[in-house]
Amino acid sequence: MRAVIPFKKSNAKSRLGTLLYEKEREDFAMAMLADVAGMLVDSDCFDVIDILSTSPIYLENTNIVLTEMGLNEALNEYLGKMSSHNLNEPVLIIMADIPLVSKKNIKDIVSSQADIVIAPGRMGGTNAVFIRNPLSFHVDYYGASFLKHLEIAKGLCIEVFDSFNLSTDIDEVSDLAEVLIHGKGHSKSYLEKIGISILANGGRVGVKRF
Amino acid sequence: MRAVIPFKKSNAKSRLGTLLYEKEREDFAMAMLADVAGMLVDSDCFDVIDILSTSPIYLENTNIVLTEMGLNEALNEYLGKMSSHNLNEPVLIIMADIPLVSKKNIKDIVSSQADIVIAPGRMGGTNAVFIRNPLSFHVDYYGASFLKHLEIAKGLCIEVFDSFNLSTDIDEVSDLAEVLIHGKGHSKSYLEKIGISILANGGRVGVKRF
Repeated sequence: MRAVIPFKKSNAKSRLGTLLYEKEREDFAMAMLADVAGMLVDSDCFDVIDILSTSPIYLENTNIVLTEMGLNEALNEYLGKMSSHNLNEPVLIIMADIPLVSKKNIKDIVSSQADIVIAPGRMGGTNAVFIRNPLSFHVDYYGASFLKHLEIAKGLCIEVFDSFNLSTDIDEVSDLAEVLIHGKGHSKSYLEKIGISILANGGRVGVKRF
Repeated sequence: MRAVIPFKKSNAKSRLGTLLYEKEREDFAMAMLADVAGMLVDSDCFDVIDILSTSPIYLENTNIVLTEMGLNEALNEYLGKMSSHNLNEPVLIIMADIPLVSKKNIKDIVSSQADIVIAPGRMGGTNAVFIRNPLSFHVDYYGASFLKHLEIAKGLCIEVFDSFNLSTDIDEVSDLAEVLIHGKGHSKSYLEKIGISILANGGRVGVKRF
């Protein structure tokens, strides 16, 4: 079984730019990637963990596959190559910016009996998709990709994977509160190291920087 | 086993006021309550389903308990009364604005072996809490209530319930997209009836009104 994580380091997470410098955003993106990849490694479910990266990086126990393509093109080429090499083994596509994911989440998603397992992100996104047969599916991210992926998988047995951890992709400054509240890994440590903490004054929770 | 839902109808969901009229917000709040209570009823897990309401309402298969108190005061009085009447049975406190909750979610949360099961909401909230012994716990909502509830339950066996459905409380206009994308019940039907639909133009998903 394979796992693949698409990843972009250069100018990563631009919407965090109001709170984090560019170098910090890149380091934080690497910390989130390390959290996600770490859970894949710890789960012991995968023979191969590939990272489709737009720039050279190093992360232990993973293969870095350099690509200049966009998200959809890179992943669909990956699925196509698996098919053309007769690698009809299951593959988990998982986003690099969901640092709350747990080992149990990974084990649960890949032990589903469905043909396609989709873990929704907030606002119509798709944060992980488990594909039993890479010949049978292609991805279409951006917009309401959750609905597009349901449509692409029509006719197959589909499971929607209900997880707060997997649904929590970190894009905006307010999302950092989720990492500080629920995180346990590198991403949380990194935010604490650079002085980001929770701001809770009665009503809504936010984040602040010292 | 008991379930209790705190509910406020009058001027409900004020942050939806930029898209929905006051009467619509109240009707939508009732639709969400019907979705949540309906799943409690369908789960067949509860002898009693109480709704702590600030105004007279009717909802089949539930008891309406009128209260003028705030959220924390009303729920803590409720837990206190259970204790003083020696009703040391388990109780599930669940919010009225999480219409994605499923029957399976309810069955799973109450079949936990933990003393306290907490289902986090986004941004540090608590959307459901299952309390094995009402003597052992009190609630403290608002702000980072998830962290406060972990602290209150210190020393007890705590489970954090990982669910996108339960984490998705509907407060702001953008949250309506979650109901339209993932909902199956009264809340989704109501939004469609009043002309609210998903707006997906490549990037992020939103909602619009015809």
